[in-house]
Amino acid sequence: MKALLTRRYMFPASHRLHSDEMSEQENRDVYGKCNNPYGHGHNYVIEVTVSGQVDGQTGMVCNLVDLDDFVKTQVLERYDHQNLNLLSEFANLVPTTENLCIAIYEIVNRGFKSAHLEKIRIEETMMNSFEYAGDNGL
Amino acid sequence: MKALLTRRYMFPASHRLHSDEMSEQENRDVYGKCNNPYGHGHNYVIEVTVSGQVDGQTGMVCNLVDLDDFVKTQVLERYDHQNLNLLSEFANLVPTTENLCIAIYEIVNRGFKSAHLEKIRIEETMMNSFEYAGDNGL
Amino acid sequence: MKALLTRRYMFPASHRLHSDEMSEQENRDVYGKCNNPYGHGHNYVIEVTVSGQVDGQTGMVCNLVDLDDFVKTQVLERYDHQNLNLLSEFANLVPTTENLCIAIYEIVNRGFKSAHLEKIRIEETMMNSFEYAGDNGL
Amino acid sequence: MKALLTRRYMFPASHRLHSDEMSEQENRDVYGKCNNPYGHGHNYVIEVTVSGQVDGQTGMVCNLVDLDDFVKTQVLERYDHQNLNLLSEFANLVPTTENLCIAIYEIVNRGFKSAHLEKIRIEETMMNSFEYAGDNGL
Amino acid sequence: MKALLTRRYMFPASHRLHSDEMSEQENRDVYGKCNNPYGHGHNYVIEVTVSGQVDGQTGMVCNLVDLDDFVKTQVLERYDHQNLNLLSEFANLVPTTENLCIAIYEIVNRGFKSAHLEKIRIEETMMNSFEYAGDNGL
Amino acid sequence: MKALLTRRYMFPASHRLHSDEMSEQENRDVYGKCNNPYGHGHNYVIEVTVSGQVDGQTGMVCNLVDLDDFVKTQVLERYDHQNLNLLSEFANLVPTTENLCIAIYEIVNRGFKSAHLEKIRIEETMMNSFEYAGDNGL
Repeated sequence: MKALLTRRYMFPASHRLHSDEMSEQENRDVYGKCNNPYGHGHNYVIEVTVSGQVDGQTGMVCNLVDLDDFVKTQVLERYDHQNLNLLSEFANLVPTTENLCIAIYEIVNRGFKSAHLEKIRIEETMMNSFEYAGDNGL
Repeated sequence: MKALLTRRYMFPASHRLHSDEMSEQENRDVYGKCNNPYGHGHNYVIEVTVSGQVDGQTGMVCNLVDLDDFVKTQVLERYDHQNLNLLSEFANLVPTTENLCIAIYEIVNRGFKSAHLEKIRIEETMMNSFEYAGDNGL
Repeated sequence: MKALLTRRYMFPASHRLHSDEMSEQENRDVYGKCNNPYGHGHNYVIEVTVSGQVDGQTGMVCNLVDLDDFVKTQVLERYDHQNLNLLSEFANLVPTTENLCIAIYEIVNRGFKSAHLEKIRIEETMMNSFEYAGDNGL
Repeated sequence: MKALLTRRYMFPASHRLHSDEMSEQENRDVYGKCNNPYGHGHNYVIEVTVSGQVDGQTGMVCNLVDLDDFVKTQVLERYDHQNLNLLSEFANLVPTTENLCIAIYEIVNRGFKSAHLEKIRIEETMMNSFEYAGDNGL
Repeated sequence: MKALLTRRYMFPASHRLHSDEMSEQENRDVYGKCNNPYGHGHNYVIEVTVSGQVDGQTGMVCNLVDLDDFVKTQVLERYDHQNLNLLSEFANLVPTTENLCIAIYEIVNRGFKSAHLEKIRIEETMMNSFEYAGDNGL
Repeated sequence: MKALLTRRYMFPASHRLHSDEMSEQENRDVYGKCNNPYGHGHNYVIEVTVSGQVDGQTGMVCNLVDLDDFVKTQVLERYDHQNLNLLSEFANLVPTTENLCIAIYEIVNRGFKSAHLEKIRIEETMMNSFEYAGDNGL
């Protein structure tokens, strides 16, 4: 009886899309308005999907309290109300939502042990979303 | 030309999370507020996903009228406006949303013959959802 | 420069619609499925709308932290994961969402002093909502 | 580092469900109100999901500007504010949302080369949606 | 204790925006794509807001069953899955959503007697909505 | 026949809440995480509500094309993908969403002449919104 559990979290943050490996003109061509020098922001909605056997006694894949505690201390405290460009993982990596998705996947996959991480999905706006499911993903 | 069709249904119900196999203290530790003795409730949103060949003549995976009739008589009449703890399937099973998901999957999988059941997804709140796709699931 | 601020909160709870002043048959006629003896539940979404001058220095109608603190301690702690029928304000009052709306209005209106309460709106389901704006309301 | 990108688009259109291969009575039996002679309409919400390696330099699966340009010129210009029954692809095919999903899949799969098309999902209403993922789909 | 109750309903329909009092060119200039000769459609979401004293015995502004019965027989049966241009009220009136809003207001205001009609709001798409509150409205 | 028309627009932007009239400590006390020095961002959803007589010939309060043109050139071009703190109207004014709401109200009220501006509403996140209706507002 393997089931999936998906939990949503939300945090606002800002970012600027700019790659040091490209010229100013290339940056403007690739990122358009997202390249403006002073950044802009989003309300990121994060969905964490984990899977596991439904425990015969508790009836749960894992305790939501454990997942919330992990995500709050390891993910939200790191990203909530931040400028993503200033974080160490984006020192040499453009903070696109694809890369943010991978960064959050790696934090949860490495540290959360109460269930198996299936994927991370991020809604950047109500019109765009991204998913990352690890190396064996998709 | 195999396609998927997903249909949403909604019903309110109440439940209390409590396992007779655990002590009072263990119940409070595991379920927190969800263990309060008089129960609480949710607007459950159910998504039924079925698949099949798109019929060359009708252009449909299956007739929505058939799916609605089945779900209304076999699922909604059973759960709508009920206290889940009082239903026979939860006599010895904690009515978590994981277990509700499995119970509804089994009803639809056993009785609905107009298309192949892919999965049942339940939104317990706008922040939590659960999915079950059967033994071969995921 | 008078502006409105609306903040949403969510809590699950259960209730049963039943009036001691009516016969069993009248109760069933008036409340239908909502009268079933063991109750059912909802994810109530509460919207608190307050108004006030936008402060020239802070640029705010009132501090959201103050509103959150008030609502969490005075409203959510009282109703979250509860059976509404067991609360003292519903000892002689049917816990319809209209009456819940009025009860929450009175708590906020009496106790929250950082801005003027305009109204309380509750979404019982995504198809139903209720509003109460006090004696001078509407 | 393979990731998924999903982008939503919306267009209103009208259709009538009617198959020339069936009698008037069969059409009414199969399609019900959707068979009324003068058609009805929907706000179709289209989700295009593509996948690919996250580019090491740009941090993107593909440029959203390219996807938007393709979908606007090849999909939205064709279907937006149209009567689907009058389009050539529906000359001999009932314009159900299943068939619309397949038609859009084929346009994007044939013409969009900046990432791999995973699937097309269409919300016909907030209660119904359909997905098509090609011959190897699901 | 006067409160407001708002109930949502949804129906798909098609329309074409075209005024016989204007030339072909004027129609195209005013209505753009909405003037294409074969029509297009929407999922209209209707919100009916009524007000009244909260009944001391039942705790309700009015019984939702009564409102649902009225709206289903008098509004949804008239408009659901229809081509609005063919209805008698739009014989000499362009079926814009403004005019649809007024037409539904007049039906509910004339016929529904269990509570006071405050307003009708229609979401034509998730980006557009319209409200009408009668002669004394706004 | 006076009706209301509401149109939604969306843009991402970043801001930092900080008042030069307060000390560092006061700023941290008042704005909390919103005061972090490098800013954060939101997907702002703007709702513009205008009113007017429904034109007897066109059936419209005003042409949505006119409203869209105005908002795109006068509002979205100014705020979309910007850092609000760098704009001239926020040189001496904290860019709270209350103040952004007033700034947009003034632009639309001054420049849009095809209908009467009723109010501007901004959703900062799905949990917070603000409204401003001018000097005679509320």
